[in-house]
Amino acid sequence: MDKVVLAYSGGLDTSFCVKYLKHERQLEVYTILVNTGGFSEAELEDTEKRALELGSSAHVNKTILETFYQKAIKYLVFGNVLKNNTYPLSVSAERIFQAIEVINYAKEIGAKYIAHGSTGAGNDQIRFDVIFQTLAPEIEILTPIRDLRLSREQEVDYLKQYGVNYSWEKAQYSINKGIWGTSVGGKETLTSQNPLPEEAFPSQLQKSEDEEVVLHFEKGELIGINALKNDPVTNIQYLEKLASAFAIGRDIHVGDTIIGIKGRVGFEAAAPLIIIKAHHLLEKHVLTKWQQYWKEQLANWYGMLLHEGNYLDPVMRNIEAFLTDTQKNVTGEVTVKLKPYHFILQGVESAYDLMKSDFGQYGEMNNNWTAEDAKGFIKIYGNANKIYHNINSEKV
Amino acid sequence: MDKVVLAYSGGLDTSFCVKYLKHERQLEVYTILVNTGGFSEAELEDTEKRALELGSSAHVNKTILETFYQKAIKYLVFGNVLKNNTYPLSVSAERIFQAIEVINYAKEIGAKYIAHGSTGAGNDQIRFDVIFQTLAPEIEILTPIRDLRLSREQEVDYLKQYGVNYSWEKAQYSINKGIWGTSVGGKETLTSQNPLPEEAFPSQLQKSEDEEVVLHFEKGELIGINALKNDPVTNIQYLEKLASAFAIGRDIHVGDTIIGIKGRVGFEAAAPLIIIKAHHLLEKHVLTKWQQYWKEQLANWYGMLLHEGNYLDPVMRNIEAFLTDTQKNVTGEVTVKLKPYHFILQGVESAYDLMKSDFGQYGEMNNNWTAEDAKGFIKIYGNANKIYHNINSEKV
Amino acid sequence: MDKVVLAYSGGLDTSFCVKYLKHERQLEVYTILVNTGGFSEAELEDTEKRALELGSSAHVNKTILETFYQKAIKYLVFGNVLKNNTYPLSVSAERIFQAIEVINYAKEIGAKYIAHGSTGAGNDQIRFDVIFQTLAPEIEILTPIRDLRLSREQEVDYLKQYGVNYSWEKAQYSINKGIWGTSVGGKETLTSQNPLPEEAFPSQLQKSEDEEVVLHFEKGELIGINALKNDPVTNIQYLEKLASAFAIGRDIHVGDTIIGIKGRVGFEAAAPLIIIKAHHLLEKHVLTKWQQYWKEQLANWYGMLLHEGNYLDPVMRNIEAFLTDTQKNVTGEVTVKLKPYHFILQGVESAYDLMKSDFGQYGEMNNNWTAEDAKGFIKIYGNANKIYHNINSEKV
Amino acid sequence: MDKVVLAYSGGLDTSFCVKYLKHERQLEVYTILVNTGGFSEAELEDTEKRALELGSSAHVNKTILETFYQKAIKYLVFGNVLKNNTYPLSVSAERIFQAIEVINYAKEIGAKYIAHGSTGAGNDQIRFDVIFQTLAPEIEILTPIRDLRLSREQEVDYLKQYGVNYSWEKAQYSINKGIWGTSVGGKETLTSQNPLPEEAFPSQLQKSEDEEVVLHFEKGELIGINALKNDPVTNIQYLEKLASAFAIGRDIHVGDTIIGIKGRVGFEAAAPLIIIKAHHLLEKHVLTKWQQYWKEQLANWYGMLLHEGNYLDPVMRNIEAFLTDTQKNVTGEVTVKLKPYHFILQGVESAYDLMKSDFGQYGEMNNNWTAEDAKGFIKIYGNANKIYHNINSEKV
Repeated sequence: MDKVVLAYSGGLDTSFCVKYLKHERQLEVYTILVNTGGFSEAELEDTEKRALELGSSAHVNKTILETFYQKAIKYLVFGNVLKNNTYPLSVSAERIFQAIEVINYAKEIGAKYIAHGSTGAGNDQIRFDVIFQTLAPEIEILTPIRDLRLSREQEVDYLKQYGVNYSWEKAQYSINKGIWGTSVGGKETLTSQNPLPEEAFPSQLQKSEDEEVVLHFEKGELIGINALKNDPVTNIQYLEKLASAFAIGRDIHVGDTIIGIKGRVGFEAAAPLIIIKAHHLLEKHVLTKWQQYWKEQLANWYGMLLHEGNYLDPVMRNIEAFLTDTQKNVTGEVTVKLKPYHFILQGVESAYDLMKSDFGQYGEMNNNWTAEDAKGFIKIYGNANKIYHNINSEKV
Repeated sequence: MDKVVLAYSGGLDTSFCVKYLKHERQLEVYTILVNTGGFSEAELEDTEKRALELGSSAHVNKTILETFYQKAIKYLVFGNVLKNNTYPLSVSAERIFQAIEVINYAKEIGAKYIAHGSTGAGNDQIRFDVIFQTLAPEIEILTPIRDLRLSREQEVDYLKQYGVNYSWEKAQYSINKGIWGTSVGGKETLTSQNPLPEEAFPSQLQKSEDEEVVLHFEKGELIGINALKNDPVTNIQYLEKLASAFAIGRDIHVGDTIIGIKGRVGFEAAAPLIIIKAHHLLEKHVLTKWQQYWKEQLANWYGMLLHEGNYLDPVMRNIEAFLTDTQKNVTGEVTVKLKPYHFILQGVESAYDLMKSDFGQYGEMNNNWTAEDAKGFIKIYGNANKIYHNINSEKV
Repeated sequence: MDKVVLAYSGGLDTSFCVKYLKHERQLEVYTILVNTGGFSEAELEDTEKRALELGSSAHVNKTILETFYQKAIKYLVFGNVLKNNTYPLSVSAERIFQAIEVINYAKEIGAKYIAHGSTGAGNDQIRFDVIFQTLAPEIEILTPIRDLRLSREQEVDYLKQYGVNYSWEKAQYSINKGIWGTSVGGKETLTSQNPLPEEAFPSQLQKSEDEEVVLHFEKGELIGINALKNDPVTNIQYLEKLASAFAIGRDIHVGDTIIGIKGRVGFEAAAPLIIIKAHHLLEKHVLTKWQQYWKEQLANWYGMLLHEGNYLDPVMRNIEAFLTDTQKNVTGEVTVKLKPYHFILQGVESAYDLMKSDFGQYGEMNNNWTAEDAKGFIKIYGNANKIYHNINSEKV
Repeated sequence: MDKVVLAYSGGLDTSFCVKYLKHERQLEVYTILVNTGGFSEAELEDTEKRALELGSSAHVNKTILETFYQKAIKYLVFGNVLKNNTYPLSVSAERIFQAIEVINYAKEIGAKYIAHGSTGAGNDQIRFDVIFQTLAPEIEILTPIRDLRLSREQEVDYLKQYGVNYSWEKAQYSINKGIWGTSVGGKETLTSQNPLPEEAFPSQLQKSEDEEVVLHFEKGELIGINALKNDPVTNIQYLEKLASAFAIGRDIHVGDTIIGIKGRVGFEAAAPLIIIKAHHLLEKHVLTKWQQYWKEQLANWYGMLLHEGNYLDPVMRNIEAFLTDTQKNVTGEVTVKLKPYHFILQGVESAYDLMKSDFGQYGEMNNNWTAEDAKGFIKIYGNANKIYHNINSEKV
C-alpha cells in the first residue's frame, strides 16, 4: 500500500483527511504534527492518541522551537519585521517550517504522497504546496479539503459513518498559536469595521501595577531578561508569560494575501512586539543612518517573501547574510515598562551607543566644530537646492 | 540704517539678539514670530510687547496654520510619515515654513540682513540657513548665538547693561509647541537610558473612561470628527483636545541629525499619531499592495528630506504629486477608541474598501476560483523557486 | 449565434482559430487586428482579406499609435525604462494596449466570448487574460491554441479540411514588430550561449559614414529631430528610419518571465534606445540627484508591472503622475552621433541645465565658498563616520 | 622638526606643496605616491627622484593593486556598479584607498601632519579629509593648494625662487589613470554640449577586425581570459590591453558631486565596462529575479557612498556581505565580441544557468503545466486588479 504523510492538527478537517485518505484513496496514512510552540505536552499526547484512533499508521509530534528560532524568528528580530507595520508574521512564518519538516519526513519514510488540510481560499495552501513541490517534486500533493469543499456537517457525517463520534464543537474563533504569536480569526475579522471583543483574545488582563523588565541583547539576539540569562527561545517564552498578564500585544492585521484579496486577522503577540520594538530602539542608538535605512528595506522585503511562501528564493539567504552582518554591535540592554494593554520603552544602555561619543551632544555647545565650520557646512550642503532655484525661479 | 529681520520667539536667546543687532551691529531690527499653532493670542501679544520694549522697530505675529497644513501636514498624513517609525516630525516640519515666512518678510521690507537665534550644534540652523540662502541669496544671515557661544549668564548680563531685567527662568525642559506636536528636550533626553517623567509632558491624564471617536477622511484629509464636519486644521486641534486628555501620543524619538550626530528628544503628539495611524489603516483597505509599498518608500524619503532641510529640492514636489494621486479613494471613516495613554483602531467603513468586493472573503469558500485553479496558480507561482532548486540542490 | 471577438494577426495560429471557433464552437467570429506600428497599409489589407476569406463575419484593423504613445511610450521615455538595463519593453508594452482595444471592441459589439491565439507557455496569455478578465469579467475567454496544444502540421491539416491552402511557411525566427521595437526569437535565442546572426535582424547596415542628429525634447517628449518639429509618434518613426540604416539598437534580452522561467529574446530598437539614452542624458543635466534616484526606482518598477501585465494596478497611475511631474524642465536638445552598430551621445543644450548656474564649475576655483567653508563642510559631513569609528575602533 | 606626510603625484601642485611645507611651515616632508595601476615603473622612479630633489626627506612608492581589487573593484564587479548607468567609478574608488595608505603611513612614521594637493572645489578633498579625520583624528590636515588658491604661474614662480626650474607644461586635459579606468577632464568637459575629440582619449583605435574573447568567472570574479587562468588583477590588465586596441569603453559621465554641483568628465575604461556587462549578463542567467533586484539596489547605493567618500560607513561592510553572498553561483563563461569602439555580448555558458532546467523553454510547449494550470494561475494572479476595478469602475 502506498504511503501518505498528512500534516495533522487534531481538528475536524485533518481528522476527516485521515479517514478519507485511508478509505477512499487506499493509502497508508502517517500523521505528523509540527509544533512551533502552540501545543502543550498534554495536547500533543491527545493529538497523537486521536490520530492513531482514526487510523494513522504512525504519528509523530515534532517540536521545532529551536529550528524555527534559528531559521526565522532570529531574522525577524534582526529585521524588526512587522508586516504592514503591525503584524509579526506569527502564522506565516511557522507554516514554512512546518512544511519543511513534513516534507522531510515524507522523504525519510519514502511516502509517495503528502497531504494537508488547507482550503483553496487562503495563504497556507500556497506556503505548503510551494515548499512541498520545490523540495520534493516527485511526491504528489493530496488536498481533500481543498478539492471536496465539504461543509462542516458533511465532514462530521462522513466521520460518523466510520464510527468517529468526537464532539467537534465549532469554536467561535479560529485560533492558531505558536511561539511567535497567536492569530485570532472569525466573526468580526470578516468585517472591516468591527474590533475583536476583549474575550476573543487568549490572554486576559491580570495585572494593573506597572512592571519594569530589562531585555539583554547580544548581536541582536535576546540573551537575557532581567537578571536571568538564557537561550532566546526560553527568553521569548518567559517574556510572553510576563507580558501577556498585561494583555499586551493585541492588534488586527489588514493585509494583501498571496491570492490577491484583502485579509483581516486579529492577533496577540506580546513578546514578539516588545522584543521587536526594544531591538529597534537599541539599533537606533548603535547603527548608522544608512544601516537602519537598508535594514528596513531588506527586512520588510524578507517579511513579505516569507509571508508569501517564497522562503526558498535564494535572495532570502542573501538578506539573512546582510542582516546578520548588521548585528555585530547590536548589544546592550533595553528597559521596558509593562502597563495594562501597552508598554513603554524607557531607554537603552550599550557600549556601542553612538550617542556616547566624544562628539558632544545634540543641540549643546561643543568643541568639535566652530560656528564657522557650521556655516561652511551649510553653505555647501545647500548648494544643490541653491543651484536649482538659481536656474529655475519658482515661487515658494 | 540697514534693516535686519529677526526670527523672534520671546525667549532669552532671541531677546539678546534684538539688543545685540541694534547696538553692536547698528541695525534697525524688525522682529517676526511665525506661529504654527503653539502660541495663544495672549502669548502672541506678550511677545509683541516684549519685542517692542527691547527695541524692535516693528513686530509681526504671523499665524500660518492653513499654509503649514496645505504645504506640509497634508502630505505627512498622506504619507503616514513617522520618522524612524516614531516621530511625526513635529518641529522639523514647522521650521521650514517659519523660515519661508521670515525670508519672504525680509524681502518684502527690503532688509539687507536676516537673523535667527539657533546655535551651531543643531538641525534648526541648517533648516533656516538653507531656506534663506536659497530663496534670497542676496540677504546676509546673522547668527549671534551661533557665533558668540555665550552662556546664559553672559546673555542675561548683557541685557541688564541695557536695562532689561526680565526674569529669564530656565525651564527644566526645552519645549517647542505647534499644531503637529510638542517636543520636549532636556535632562533625561540627553542620556540614552532615562525616560521622561510623567510631569515633563505638557498634557496630563484627565480621563480614565474609554471614549470612541470617529474620524472622517476624504481623499486622505481629515474632514470631520464624529458628527462634526470641519476644515482639517480645526479637526486636528479638536482631536488634540479630545485625545490629550488621555495623555495619548507620548514617545521619545532617537534619530540621526543632519550634522551626523545622534539626537534624542521626547514629544507629545496625540492628534498626529491618531490621525496617521487611522489614515494608514484606511489605506490598508482601499489601496493595492504596491500602492502601499511605494507610498511608504516615497513618504519616508519625503519625511527625511523635510527633516533635513531639503524642502526646496524639486523631488519634494514630485513626491507630493505622487502622494496626492494615491489619495483619490482614501475616503471613509475610521473608529478609534481612546484609552489612558494609548488608543485602539477599531475598524473602517469605506465605499472603496477592497475587502468588500464580490470576490469573497479570505479563507472562506467562494466561487471565484476552483481548487483546480488554485493548484494551477500555485504550480506556476512556485516555478522560480522550483527551477532554482532543480539546478542547485541545496540542503534546507 | 453567439459572437466571439478574435485577436487576429494573419498567422497560422489565429487563422486556425477563426475556423475552429466557427465550426467547432459554432460562433460568429469577429476578427480584429490592433496595429501598434508593425503593419504597413498593404499588410493590413492582406490580413483583412484573409480574415474574411477564412470566415470572419467582419474584420477591423485598428491602428493605435497615438494611444499607445500617450498611454505607454511616453512614460517609458520619461522613465528611461530598459528592462534589466537592456530591453525597451517593445512587445510587452504593446500587448496591453492591444488587449484593451480588443476587449473594448468585444463590449461594443456585445460579444459573449473573446479569443486569442497565445500558448500556455508565455507572457502574452497573461497580459491578454488579465486585461480581459479585469475589464469585462462577464465575457468568457477562449484560447484554442493554449487548450489544444496542436502541432503546426495538425493546424495546417485542419485548415486544409476546410479548403484553406495558404502556404504557411515557417519563418526561421518569430518576429514581432511595433513602433517601440522589433523582437526576434527562435533558434539561437533558445540557447544561452549563441548570439543571433547578422541576418536575423530586420535592418541591415546600409551606411558607414557617421551622421549627427539633434533630438529636441520638451517636457520629456521628443518634439523634433534636427530642423523638423513634429509629433512624437512621427519623430520616433523618422528616427527609426535614420538609425536603422546604421543597424543600431540590436541586443538580446535575458529576463524572468511572469511564469517564473527565464526567457531570452533578441530585439532591434534603434529609435527607442537612442531616445531613452538621449533623454536620460538630458535629465542628468536638469534634474537633481534625488529626482534621478526616485525616477529610476519608480520607472523600473513601472516597467516591471507593465511587462508583467499589471497595467491596471492603480499604482501605475500614481507613478505616471510622478513621472509627468518630473518632466517639467526636461526641455532641451541632445546631439547624437550615429555610427555603424552604435551611437554616441555628444552633449546637451538646455535652458534648465544645472551645470550652467553661477555656482562655478566642478573642480575650478570659484567664489561661492572659501577653503574654510569647504573644511567646515567636510568636518561636519564626516561626523557620522567619525563617531562610528570613535566608538568602534575597527581595523581598516 | 615635525613630520608631515604628503600625498605626492609628481605634478606642479604637489611639487609646490613639498617646498611650501618645508620652507613656510618648517616641516620635515615625507612624500608618498600610492599607485593604483596608473604608473609604470619608470614613472614611479622619476617621481621618487623628483620628490627627493624637491626636498622630500624620504619618498615611498606604494603599489596597491591587489588591495584595491580586494577592497573595492571586486565589489564593484559583484554589484555591476556604473554610476548614473555610465561611469565605473574609476577615480572615485581609488582615492579612498590612496587615502587609507597615506594615513596609515603617517601613523606609522609618527607624523603630526598630513597634506594633500586637492583644491576646495572638487570631490577629492572630501574623500581625503574624511578618511584622514576618521582614521586619525589626532593628525592635522594641511592643504596649501586649497588654502592659498594660487594660480599656476604663482606656483611656478614660487618654485623658481627655490631654484626649481622643471618645465611644467600644462596638459590640455587632466588625466587620471588607474587600473579601473582613466578619467579625462578639461576643455570640452567644462561645457554641457561638446564631446571630447578622438585624440583626447589615451587609447586610439588600432584594430578593425572583430575579435572574440571568453571571460571566465568564478563566484563573480574574473579568473581567466580565453585559455589563460590568472588572478583577477592580471586578467583586468590583460583585457584592458586587448580591448583598448579597439578604442572601447569611452564615454562621458555627468553626475552630482558631493558639493552639490554638477560635474562632467570623460573617461576610458575598456576592461571595467566589458567585465561589468559580461558579469551582469551571467547573473541574468544564474540569479533569481529578486536577487537581481536587490543587488541592483544595494550596489548602486554602495557605488554612491563610495563615490561620496563614505567608504567607512559600516553599511558598506554589510552590503559587501550581501554582495558576496549573492555570488555563490556566478560561475561560468561569457563570450564577448570586440569591435571598433564597442563590443557585443554573445552569450553565456554556466552550470548554474537557470535557463537550463527541466522546466522547458519560454514560449515552447512543455509538460510542467497544463492549459488549465495556466488559466488557474492567471485567474488568481489577476485577482488584485480585478478586485480594484470591481470596486472602482474606472474608464481605461
